[in-house]
Amino acid sequence: MAKVGIVMGSDSDMPVMSKAAEILEQFGISFEMRIISAHREPEELVEWARSAEERGIKVLIAGAGMAAALPGMVAALSPLPVIGVPLKSGALGGTDALYSIVQMPSGIPVATVAIDGAKNAAILAARILGVSDPELLQKVKDFGEDGRKAVVAKDARLQEVGYKEYSAK
Amino acid sequence: MAKVGIVMGSDSDMPVMSKAAEILEQFGISFEMRIISAHREPEELVEWARSAEERGIKVLIAGAGMAAALPGMVAALSPLPVIGVPLKSGALGGTDALYSIVQMPSGIPVATVAIDGAKNAAILAARILGVSDPELLQKVKDFGEDGRKAVVAKDARLQEVGYKEYSAK
Amino acid sequence: MAKVGIVMGSDSDMPVMSKAAEILEQFGISFEMRIISAHREPEELVEWARSAEERGIKVLIAGAGMAAALPGMVAALSPLPVIGVPLKSGALGGTDALYSIVQMPSGIPVATVAIDGAKNAAILAARILGVSDPELLQKVKDFGEDGRKAVVAKDARLQEVGYKEYSAK
Amino acid sequence: MAKVGIVMGSDSDMPVMSKAAEILEQFGISFEMRIISAHREPEELVEWARSAEERGIKVLIAGAGMAAALPGMVAALSPLPVIGVPLKSGALGGTDALYSIVQMPSGIPVATVAIDGAKNAAILAARILGVSDPELLQKVKDFGEDGRKAVVAKDARLQEVGYKEYSAK
Amino acid sequence: MAKVGIVMGSDSDMPVMSKAAEILEQFGISFEMRIISAHREPEELVEWARSAEERGIKVLIAGAGMAAALPGMVAALSPLPVIGVPLKSGALGGTDALYSIVQMPSGIPVATVAIDGAKNAAILAARILGVSDPELLQKVKDFGEDGRKAVVAKDARLQEVGYKEYSAK
Amino acid sequence: MAKVGIVMGSDSDMPVMSKAAEILEQFGISFEMRIISAHREPEELVEWARSAEERGIKVLIAGAGMAAALPGMVAALSPLPVIGVPLKSGALGGTDALYSIVQMPSGIPVATVAIDGAKNAAILAARILGVSDPELLQKVKDFGEDGRKAVVAKDARLQEVGYKEYSAK
Amino acid sequence: MAKVGIVMGSDSDMPVMSKAAEILEQFGISFEMRIISAHREPEELVEWARSAEERGIKVLIAGAGMAAALPGMVAALSPLPVIGVPLKSGALGGTDALYSIVQMPSGIPVATVAIDGAKNAAILAARILGVSDPELLQKVKDFGEDGRKAVVAKDARLQEVGYKEYSAK
Amino acid sequence: MAKVGIVMGSDSDMPVMSKAAEILEQFGISFEMRIISAHREPEELVEWARSAEERGIKVLIAGAGMAAALPGMVAALSPLPVIGVPLKSGALGGTDALYSIVQMPSGIPVATVAIDGAKNAAILAARILGVSDPELLQKVKDFGEDGRKAVVAKDARLQEVGYKEYSAK
Repeated sequence: MAKVGIVMGSDSDMPVMSKAAEILEQFGISFEMRIISAHREPEELVEWARSAEERGIKVLIAGAGMAAALPGMVAALSPLPVIGVPLKSGALGGTDALYSIVQMPSGIPVATVAIDGAKNAAILAARILGVSDPELLQKVKDFGEDGRKAVVAKDARLQEVGYKEYSAK
Repeated sequence: MAKVGIVMGSDSDMPVMSKAAEILEQFGISFEMRIISAHREPEELVEWARSAEERGIKVLIAGAGMAAALPGMVAALSPLPVIGVPLKSGALGGTDALYSIVQMPSGIPVATVAIDGAKNAAILAARILGVSDPELLQKVKDFGEDGRKAVVAKDARLQEVGYKEYSAK
Repeated sequence: MAKVGIVMGSDSDMPVMSKAAEILEQFGISFEMRIISAHREPEELVEWARSAEERGIKVLIAGAGMAAALPGMVAALSPLPVIGVPLKSGALGGTDALYSIVQMPSGIPVATVAIDGAKNAAILAARILGVSDPELLQKVKDFGEDGRKAVVAKDARLQEVGYKEYSAK
Repeated sequence: MAKVGIVMGSDSDMPVMSKAAEILEQFGISFEMRIISAHREPEELVEWARSAEERGIKVLIAGAGMAAALPGMVAALSPLPVIGVPLKSGALGGTDALYSIVQMPSGIPVATVAIDGAKNAAILAARILGVSDPELLQKVKDFGEDGRKAVVAKDARLQEVGYKEYSAK
Repeated sequence: MAKVGIVMGSDSDMPVMSKAAEILEQFGISFEMRIISAHREPEELVEWARSAEERGIKVLIAGAGMAAALPGMVAALSPLPVIGVPLKSGALGGTDALYSIVQMPSGIPVATVAIDGAKNAAILAARILGVSDPELLQKVKDFGEDGRKAVVAKDARLQEVGYKEYSAK
Repeated sequence: MAKVGIVMGSDSDMPVMSKAAEILEQFGISFEMRIISAHREPEELVEWARSAEERGIKVLIAGAGMAAALPGMVAALSPLPVIGVPLKSGALGGTDALYSIVQMPSGIPVATVAIDGAKNAAILAARILGVSDPELLQKVKDFGEDGRKAVVAKDARLQEVGYKEYSAK
Repeated sequence: MAKVGIVMGSDSDMPVMSKAAEILEQFGISFEMRIISAHREPEELVEWARSAEERGIKVLIAGAGMAAALPGMVAALSPLPVIGVPLKSGALGGTDALYSIVQMPSGIPVATVAIDGAKNAAILAARILGVSDPELLQKVKDFGEDGRKAVVAKDARLQEVGYKEYSAK
Repeated sequence: MAKVGIVMGSDSDMPVMSKAAEILEQFGISFEMRIISAHREPEELVEWARSAEERGIKVLIAGAGMAAALPGMVAALSPLPVIGVPLKSGALGGTDALYSIVQMPSGIPVATVAIDGAKNAAILAARILGVSDPELLQKVKDFGEDGRKAVVAKDARLQEVGYKEYSAK
């Protein structure tokens, strides 16, 4: 049974949104992934989002570009925490999607991450699920620690070889 | 039977959106006016927008601020022409609403007017209805002619009194 | 006799604006297509826009980039509904054209679509003509239904093959 | 024992951030509230954020304006879900704070809400805690239902009295 | 016979545009001043701009706000140098007018000054007329010298009284 | 003796600024062209701009990118009309140069053209010189007429071959 | 003998720039303060900035609004470190000044602080002078410590009285 | 012993930040260079920045992209002058990093240079160190003089060969 529901408005969003799926797999979090367009399939969206809670979903991730209504509509239809991913597409470089997702009216929050930040959306879902899952919370810490070690290793190499050789790599 | 359906997401939008109603009355166009929040009442919105055509509505006007999903969702739910009015509210001065309304994905257009342009939304509705209503089209022309005459009169006064007295009025 | 008049300010706009023509053909809507520059041929523009109504045109579509005066001037010259398409060109990525088209003063509306949204402009024209043409309105609904089915099919494939194979396609 | 930790960078943020506290009280969620400046008290911040989890905190809310480093640093220091509230202050109207909070690098997400969206931050915290607290989740639903009813009541009044009397109120 | 033609799109532009008139008077440059709306009176505009040269006008100044088509259309209709003044009005604070005026397509330049820069527009007109009028050019120099002296005097007072007394004035 | 002085801040500006030179040659207007950096050679700039008038220069064209001080400083140093060309370079796509050039304080105008609008800068110079040179003014008109004819020819071809063949060219 | 030179382009900048003077006095740093307009008094500026070093000045602070050429020109004329303060004035809210000051071309840096950040400019000057003045560096630390204690005291009061009483103050 | 400390948040910043190192070498200024992520290694950052002064560092340079907390946190942790370099990365082209670095709250200044302006950051560091090092100050002057000569040489070649041959090079 899926714990996270990922939804995107178009399959052109897949290259970015699949990064969320990869992170969830890395954390061992079950998920379902759907392509549902808020503007082409409003009733399907209502049905999917309204039923998410009873299907056992705990967190929803919604990615969309341009006039990105999807994350906000999902948050309107479900009491679960909804994470919005603004996607860079079209002439405005994602600013339109960012504003359409983050500037929600009072009462219906969407937890917005960076433009094209699907990976961070999945990490945020893990943090949220970790609130009641100590094992998962530990994985979040380990993931952070791995990130820290990766930078430490890069810095160590820089100290060893100097910036010229480092840049030449 | 109403020909135009006006919908806004909050009654705080009324001071701007009522200007659309005033223009429609001036043109003798029947209308209904509703407050339906896309994010608080998604099912009510689906029902209202889905049934608009069969209730005899010909054109829809939707005004909303911030992450303004309302106009796009109405356009997703009805095959009628939908006019979107971005409203100036919140910290971004209406840019958020403008982007959320005008940057619709391919397939679902919203006829967007200026920020807080409710009056123009009503005139656009009149132009659209005028496509099949010569009498109304004539009213649109008369309205434009009245606007023209108003500027002509102001210019005439300027020529008469000069810019200093004009500015002092 | 053409029902829709498409005008663009330069033939460099053709790659985008021709998408409007393709959609109109798909809907079986007759149209004429002109290249008239507001800034190079103001009198030609006056003549074309002023005569549109009597030539039987019902809806006008105007596309322009940068300081895009064309759609607004067409709306000033004709009582017909005018759809504006802001085009992405020059250093500001279409923001200049968007502001030049959507921010019309009170009295003269332009129904603005997304930057480079020529396809949506044609669909909007079909919706407007559908107000008094039930057959065309049905085509608009069928077009929306086709769009819906296309997303449904993509989602079905995603459920079948999973996101990894889907992404690898 | 507090379940939510609210932190703001300056007491000039209190008028906005106190709305988060009010909502948490309404939901019956215990919280602690701190004024800690990321730029004036970096060590205090490290200590507070590092110890949040072991003190039983489940969700963190951080509000800041201008070059708003606070939410991101809190997210760097704690594995808990962190909600960021960009505050409108200074010459850029909150755009600086929005970008400083939402555009987090890969690995460290901040769940960003609208500019000055402290109320929504608290509702998002309730949704997150509701993941493992059915009673609280029910309160979130009731809160949404109350919001829905408030709009329904306003619309009913509009239908009853008409827009002119409604506007005159 | 007027040497400069000032035109504005609305009499709401008068408070700003009258500053141009005051400067022209100060330089002893004759001018005519008109209110002609590009969007309400396109034919009047064509007539006025087309005839400007033969009426002896040498420089044109056009001020407009929002989707400011006026300066560009004037430049399209006359071979004279056209100075555009973007006016601050509406929700976008003059950015819309600035882009609508300065981003002219290749072939039709508008000499754009700052938002609400009507005074500078008149000084620019004086500089342009000064190209073939040594007496006027001298006035431009004197005007600049007066401006220089005014700052020198302020600085002298600052050196005399110190910043505290200066600020207290 | 040169009538127009073109100056740019760096030789990386040459690909754009050389278009101004080409247009001036086409109009038969003599010019000098200099590379002088406001930030690297302030004294050279003072000397060049201060002496421009007495060397017989009538109009100055200054192009610069990023924090583009050059056009404004030239206008500060010479009473001649100064045309500013904001150049697209660096991360902000020319918006920085546009604001640095057009937003001049009261008293010192710069006639700003579009980003990378060097061609229009030269046409504007021709219009300015045409104020006292009927032959040149006629060339400006002929140039405009040539531009008009070019669009007319393109439109004629579109009417002849249709948009599909036109697009395929 | 002054160690810091403060210059502003207009005496309308005094209310903001005087905050820099107050901080310098608080740190016991001698300074001179001048009103010199880059665009009205270019030669005065050259003279003042060129002679700053030999007059014993160590750090320069330059504040300007709109097309803010002053800080960059000062940095062009002196090898001393130059701190730029973008001032909020005119229609663009300081964005124009920020871009005009911070986006300096390679070779001539300006140390830019926040819009209207005159106080921070003075603190930065103190940090720079502190590089070779241990006593001053200690004052910078003490100043920071005072700032820290002020926040600690506010937080302590919040913990004591609670957010409601705190907000009511 | 290093006099300048360069820090960047990720080794993807190396191509830009290495330009700062090259300039420092050219000036003969010793430096250390570190990769420390504010968001992945907050404690390492605290330790490095807190100890910088006692290790003999005089000036700090910090480069970061997106929600760039690094420069501000370094300035919070050290009383030394801190130079911030906003890096262009992600969807917003460096505007996010610029705002995150320059809009520091009162009390904690960051000396911000242009987006990707690492070279200027190093020159600014040289100017700052030059305050108490006449030899280094002379190098700064020589560097400026070299820059001046390079432009003079380019202009000389332009005068010799003309713009057509110059452009063809």
